[in-house]
Amino acid sequence: MPVVTVQLWEGRTLEQKRALVKAITEAMVEHADAKPDCLHVILQEIPRENWARAGVLGVDRKDA
Amino acid sequence: MPVVTVQLWEGRTLEQKRALVKAITEAMVEHADAKPDCLHVILQEIPRENWARAGVLGVDRKDA
Amino acid sequence: MPVVTVQLWEGRTLEQKRALVKAITEAMVEHADAKPDCLHVILQEIPRENWARAGVLGVDRKDA
Amino acid sequence: MPVVTVQLWEGRTLEQKRALVKAITEAMVEHADAKPDCLHVILQEIPRENWARAGVLGVDRKDA
Amino acid sequence: MPVVTVQLWEGRTLEQKRALVKAITEAMVEHADAKPDCLHVILQEIPRENWARAGVLGVDRKDA
Amino acid sequence: MPVVTVQLWEGRTLEQKRALVKAITEAMVEHADAKPDCLHVILQEIPRENWARAGVLGVDRKDA
Repeated sequence: MPVVTVQLWEGRTLEQKRALVKAITEAMVEHADAKPDCLHVILQEIPRENWARAGVLGVDRKDA
Repeated sequence: MPVVTVQLWEGRTLEQKRALVKAITEAMVEHADAKPDCLHVILQEIPRENWARAGVLGVDRKDA
Repeated sequence: MPVVTVQLWEGRTLEQKRALVKAITEAMVEHADAKPDCLHVILQEIPRENWARAGVLGVDRKDA
Repeated sequence: MPVVTVQLWEGRTLEQKRALVKAITEAMVEHADAKPDCLHVILQEIPRENWARAGVLGVDRKDA
Repeated sequence: MPVVTVQLWEGRTLEQKRALVKAITEAMVEHADAKPDCLHVILQEIPRENWARAGVLGVDRKDA
Repeated sequence: MPVVTVQLWEGRTLEQKRALVKAITEAMVEHADAKPDCLHVILQEIPRENWARAGVLGVDRKDA
């Protein structure tokens, strides 16, 4: 019955999202004794100008 | 002085949002001894392709 | 099917928590077209030394 | 470089946590093009009296 | 290695965001013993119709 | 009027927390046009067995 929130860059395809939420849900069931019924996985897509690492925004990084 | 974050499907009307934040704020004041002055309610609207239940995205569910 | 996260001071009684989650859930059903079945309300209790308003921690405020 | 926050019941063993964060990280790398280096997985353990489903706290549910 | 999530009104310029994430990162390094390398700062921009204070949405406030 | 949530290792002293929330609040006022009055900074202290980087829990890392 857990809630998993994923903050990630925007730009995943629908196919990637499908596979990702399925795999995370399976990991929760297998390793955390979670029942899948009310298990939520929420993807928060963040634009590159709204995410910084080491004090530098994604739009300004070469390796981001 | 609490902060309430609501993650929900996108698509509520402005009128629904008005009524919702008012009702949640009243619940906090009545049941949690909260002072309303700096009580925040934040609505995070999530597209159906970014929210899964039981490992299946909202866009792929019939009952979502 | 939404998820509501409440960040609040620690110290509510079990009875207050019961009433609070019930009232918030009813608000979501009445005003946001939410189905209650998989509607989660999560209370995150924050100690007063971990919450600041206007730059001052709760432990250092007189009105907090 | 994403951040994954898991809200779940308290009570997983250290061994379960180890396996869970490893599996979630692998899912992110495989399905979301994530680089593992700065990929964070954060577990927020919630007591049963602080989590409600369908308006009823975990401590008051039989099936929780 | 911390994660800082900022929920704020939408509408900051790119220049403001650059300065903000830099200053927050420096504060974390100076005051919280954080290593900057994998320190994330994430800006979540919230529209005025999705944020309420004292039970009133930002779009309906004069002082917001 | 923003809300800043900081997820960090547990173990900062009260003095560090005081300085940290003050510095973050000043950064928000200076760089994000925020009014300090209802600006919240919330510290979520995470135990090392609940935080993984690159798939490895903090308790199992040498450099964490």
